[in-house]
Amino acid sequence: MAPSRFDAALQDAALRMETTFAHALSEAHPLLSGAPERLLAAMRHGALGGGKRLRPFLVEASAALFGAEAAHAAPVGAALECIHCYSLVHDDLPAMDDDDLRRGQPTVHRAFDEATAILAGDALLTLAFGLVAEAEAIEPAARLRLVALLSREAGAAGMAGGQALDLEAERQALDEPAIRRMQAMKTGALIAFAAESGAILAGAPEADRARLRRFGEIVGLAFQLADDLLDETADAATLGKATAKDAARGKKTLPALHGQDWTRAELERLVAEAEALLASYGDKAETLKAAARFVAFRDR
Amino acid sequence: MAPSRFDAALQDAALRMETTFAHALSEAHPLLSGAPERLLAAMRHGALGGGKRLRPFLVEASAALFGAEAAHAAPVGAALECIHCYSLVHDDLPAMDDDDLRRGQPTVHRAFDEATAILAGDALLTLAFGLVAEAEAIEPAARLRLVALLSREAGAAGMAGGQALDLEAERQALDEPAIRRMQAMKTGALIAFAAESGAILAGAPEADRARLRRFGEIVGLAFQLADDLLDETADAATLGKATAKDAARGKKTLPALHGQDWTRAELERLVAEAEALLASYGDKAETLKAAARFVAFRDR
Repeated sequence: MAPSRFDAALQDAALRMETTFAHALSEAHPLLSGAPERLLAAMRHGALGGGKRLRPFLVEASAALFGAEAAHAAPVGAALECIHCYSLVHDDLPAMDDDDLRRGQPTVHRAFDEATAILAGDALLTLAFGLVAEAEAIEPAARLRLVALLSREAGAAGMAGGQALDLEAERQALDEPAIRRMQAMKTGALIAFAAESGAILAGAPEADRARLRRFGEIVGLAFQLADDLLDETADAATLGKATAKDAARGKKTLPALHGQDWTRAELERLVAEAEALLASYGDKAETLKAAARFVAFRDR
Repeated sequence: MAPSRFDAALQDAALRMETTFAHALSEAHPLLSGAPERLLAAMRHGALGGGKRLRPFLVEASAALFGAEAAHAAPVGAALECIHCYSLVHDDLPAMDDDDLRRGQPTVHRAFDEATAILAGDALLTLAFGLVAEAEAIEPAARLRLVALLSREAGAAGMAGGQALDLEAERQALDEPAIRRMQAMKTGALIAFAAESGAILAGAPEADRARLRRFGEIVGLAFQLADDLLDETADAATLGKATAKDAARGKKTLPALHGQDWTRAELERLVAEAEALLASYGDKAETLKAAARFVAFRDR
């Protein structure tokens, strides 16, 4: 798939996800009816109106590979985006990364207050599991599997654990294996879940599920490498958030350890590996392959 | 059931829950294997070694009323306790209630640090849903219903929303309907879930489920009234946490509005209402009735 066609597909999916997501975060949603207005507003501030919506895109593309409709994948994508966005809201808090700006907007604790940001994050995380449990187009057994897997990948053994390791890295520099472990948990776990969950919700056989998971792990690795590279090379206006922060805090990244040339070569290698994994699916896997390439070589 | 026999039953259940819960929070648990040690330690600090474990007790007693074994109820009780404990960890944060002491021990952000306390709370909340999803003794459809209901009751329309309203109460005094709404969400939602979830996991008919929910709502109301009364009358050493905090912050409670005599009469009325609701179950409901009485007239 040509990059421009992929960009259009990604933006199209992001627009559709925005609609699904805005509904999931409205007072009209049965999981939220009666919620306080200000808390809902903070949740929406942290979750709507921005982001590439890459994770829901991967869920949808992975589900499509096994014949499931986009509408069936949408609640899982929305759940994943709830969790991604909650993690940003909490990571931005003064006690964590202390960021004022996210996607070019004030962070939730800046636009509201710190306590509200903590609660909005909590409520987004809590909502995610309800969205999956109520995704009635998905078989009950698959939904339960998705809830359990999401709990693992977002929790102490996954994303939250990775963030804890990242905080420890501010106190003592990590060596390369420790950096890789931290990143596999902090960023990789949810991206791997995105790719795997499409196969699960579509009822794909175990071998396909495992292959999509591995694909997701590689894409997650590429995502983080590209992110670290952008942190070194891009400017804040393009990214809509502060840059060069890792170096300023003495946090080691793989680009910092090995240099930008190594990083670009490693990204090529990872994309080739991801594409090879999906070779047996032929043209049907074009969207996922293009996604891997986009993740590795994006400029934002 | 005599108060002393009830006390013994509650303590016995709490001990069993402690074992279940310690296992759920160990590195050996499949949902947590590979999690960073320090984060796990913070989760355990916030969750183990204390508390009356009232919510799991209600799950178990409600399930028993409809013939389900305690072992079937245990994962739901553990999940509920994860959520209750996460809410305490986050509520204690400097940006929220700013408490140094909980159950006579330093709060998580005091024993560790603020960022770790935020993440430990997040990870406890995340774990809860995995525990329910993997509770294999419960029918898949009932498990999904429990996940969805727990998401609603713990989220913006339930507990987290109630905490948001409680924070707003520091800025502007609430009137009685607003106090009741806040408390029904902040405390009532999880206690109502506890009573209802037992009926759900045991596969009880809809009418029984609704009755147990109503019972839980009344018990939740009594729980909060008793809590507010204890905040006025008990000392910190007995409760293991700071007291007389509501008055100091200008937060209105129902005992503050109506007085202690009214509160004790109201507690008697609520207990009678709760007992009447369960009258048709006869002796089988003795444990639940004793729980309602305990909640209303406890001294800790």
